[in-house]
Amino acid sequence: MESNTKKLGTLYGIGVGPGDEELLTLKAVNTIKKCPVIIAPSAKDGGSSIALDTARNFISEEQEVIIKHFPMGGEEQEEKIYQAFKFIEEKLHEGKDIAFLTIGDPFVYSTYIYLLRYIKEQGYNTETVPGITSFCAAASLAGEMIVIGDERVTIFPANQVDKITDEKFVVIMKVYRLEEQVLNTLEEKGFRYVFVKRAYREGQQVLRDREEILQNRDYMSLILAQRD
Amino acid sequence: MESNTKKLGTLYGIGVGPGDEELLTLKAVNTIKKCPVIIAPSAKDGGSSIALDTARNFISEEQEVIIKHFPMGGEEQEEKIYQAFKFIEEKLHEGKDIAFLTIGDPFVYSTYIYLLRYIKEQGYNTETVPGITSFCAAASLAGEMIVIGDERVTIFPANQVDKITDEKFVVIMKVYRLEEQVLNTLEEKGFRYVFVKRAYREGQQVLRDREEILQNRDYMSLILAQRD
Repeated sequence: MESNTKKLGTLYGIGVGPGDEELLTLKAVNTIKKCPVIIAPSAKDGGSSIALDTARNFISEEQEVIIKHFPMGGEEQEEKIYQAFKFIEEKLHEGKDIAFLTIGDPFVYSTYIYLLRYIKEQGYNTETVPGITSFCAAASLAGEMIVIGDERVTIFPANQVDKITDEKFVVIMKVYRLEEQVLNTLEEKGFRYVFVKRAYREGQQVLRDREEILQNRDYMSLILAQRD
Repeated sequence: MESNTKKLGTLYGIGVGPGDEELLTLKAVNTIKKCPVIIAPSAKDGGSSIALDTARNFISEEQEVIIKHFPMGGEEQEEKIYQAFKFIEEKLHEGKDIAFLTIGDPFVYSTYIYLLRYIKEQGYNTETVPGITSFCAAASLAGEMIVIGDERVTIFPANQVDKITDEKFVVIMKVYRLEEQVLNTLEEKGFRYVFVKRAYREGQQVLRDREEILQNRDYMSLILAQRD
């Protein structure tokens, strides 16, 4: 009977921003500190977690820290997300609050969104803490606007740049390995662009020269572009 | 001669997020604390400043706080921005660092962008601290995603919603007074939507019902929408 009356834990999805611990919000720090369980995603099996590294200094030895492997896409992804859900469900039933860390903002291209579907379907308590997105971080670092006035801005994954029509402001995400194709499209369409790599992390770079960009590819990179 | 060798101040553009002091980043707080001069914009002449109210608890009595009137658009705007620039220039020449507060992120629909043009033209030192955007705040509050997977997302000012083509994910900003037209367009095009008013501020509301939305208009509101 005891377990039925036990208070369930809450799942907190926490955006930790681009990777600089100073770019966590006060709310993110306060929420991380109060949760007995911290879960952080890793893109590689057995690999480290950028989200965890970003929040590391706000986590104490008393907290339980678990890195879960979340593959980027593919058949395996769905299975891993379900496994993480089952693990989280168990902890919630133990009455433990969980901080699930995500790079950037939890609702912008995050694996957390898939996970949250299961959690909400089962009616568990959840709360989300927004984070600094990679494109806002990149804009601040480059000193370039994202959008102004009565214009719109579209955020494209790099493999969708052929969908650009009459936009004046665009952000191109997931540029890695598609740099040449993206730059060609932007140049053809008359955009000025800036390439930002590893914003607010070690090795950050702001590049505007085509050749330099092609020589400095990196998984954590994006492009801000505009035209008149 | 002394004034020529004097070190110039730096202008810090600081995103304070949607209006909850807990949604400032650590970097925003630290930067605000170290600047002797704080400038905050007000939409009304002689009015209060939401950005200042958000940061108020991190500002001490020793700091000089100035509210500058920035009208939203119109002929007067350009003049007021130039006046603010001249004021800032003077302070920078006194060697003082300035924190210029902006709601949301400094590079997403902010008056700060216009101001920064003058500052950069004159070659002054500037640094920008990104902030939580209103749409990320709204998504977290509503528990709704902004974009996922290989999709793109477009952020539209409400008066541009007729530009929607085959987008699956859209954010509609500046909805005030255009609510009916925006909802009609979204419904015609088969979008599900959520209206978020004053996210993370007093009086915040998340509404999904058309009639409720039309009865709860507010200047600080936006819509997140998606379709299959």
